[in-house]
Amino acid sequence: MPLVRISHASGKSQDTVNAISNGVHRALVNTFNVPEDDRFQIVTEHAAGTELVAPASFLGIEHTADMVFVQITCAEGRSSEQKRSLYEEIAATLSGESAVRAEDVIVNLVETKPENWSFGNGAAPFMN
Amino acid sequence: MPLVRISHASGKSQDTVNAISNGVHRALVNTFNVPEDDRFQIVTEHAAGTELVAPASFLGIEHTADMVFVQITCAEGRSSEQKRSLYEEIAATLSGESAVRAEDVIVNLVETKPENWSFGNGAAPFMN
Amino acid sequence: MPLVRISHASGKSQDTVNAISNGVHRALVNTFNVPEDDRFQIVTEHAAGTELVAPASFLGIEHTADMVFVQITCAEGRSSEQKRSLYEEIAATLSGESAVRAEDVIVNLVETKPENWSFGNGAAPFMN
Repeated sequence: MPLVRISHASGKSQDTVNAISNGVHRALVNTFNVPEDDRFQIVTEHAAGTELVAPASFLGIEHTADMVFVQITCAEGRSSEQKRSLYEEIAATLSGESAVRAEDVIVNLVETKPENWSFGNGAAPFMN
Repeated sequence: MPLVRISHASGKSQDTVNAISNGVHRALVNTFNVPEDDRFQIVTEHAAGTELVAPASFLGIEHTADMVFVQITCAEGRSSEQKRSLYEEIAATLSGESAVRAEDVIVNLVETKPENWSFGNGAAPFMN
Repeated sequence: MPLVRISHASGKSQDTVNAISNGVHRALVNTFNVPEDDRFQIVTEHAAGTELVAPASFLGIEHTADMVFVQITCAEGRSSEQKRSLYEEIAATLSGESAVRAEDVIVNLVETKPENWSFGNGAAPFMN
């Protein structure tokens, strides 16, 4: 049920972008129990520094201009532990399989009621 | 009070994009009682498949690459029945008035407090 | 902890875009007690009228096509008074330091739990 907005610095190869997209989805499957075929993403590139703005450092973590912002709108109900695992796996996977540094991966969750989703045909599959 | 993000596959005529934009707004007017002049949208096009990612099938509904994602941030308070009607009307209108298949229309609602909005001039019109 | 999406009409100079970006951040620092180095923004330009849609007038406030939409995802917990101050300061600053009219500045807040954020390295700094 997530809708994932991945906003990355421009200049990456399509292979790298695919690795980022795949990595975020696999982390959701592994930690949030998202079905494999529940994959809806909007992946956009942005000019580093001017369109994608991040501080040089925040909370002791240093950032380059090569940021990836991952904003995930999903149904409420995941535990704190699942969220912690999600953050860890996204950062580990993206730094392992693309050239993005783990420090440069920002994740934010926006939680909604399950009834707030329609996945085609005007259906409301998660409404009570 | 909605802010509507419509993200559609690229390659559409402006007439088609306008039909999508108009259809989503009319559905909000008809089902969520949104005032006619309460229309704030960000309409963006994205490369199908790479920037706009969807599965071939989810929950038994098959998707093409020609997806439209509609993410609506709005004030909380609509009933489940209103949400169901909204999904149905958006899918029916878009498939009826643009070339988008009903199966390819994804809708997600993000609900906020009414006080979380300013519609110009720094005013907070819905704050208690 | 905010992630700020600033969506503005295209055709602005980089100086003007920077003024908008700076102004929104300073307002968050001043009214929401956001740390100076807690600055994460996605700043995008859009064709006025077709990609950035706003009504000629809503709630008695008239709009031009030169809109700026500011959608701020942040941790919950700010008071109504802080929100009111934020709206006022964003509108005042943008109209004072860029060519944007105060009437054309729309602000929306999406609030989340503090634990819904990771600012790099897969860490969950605001999790209990």
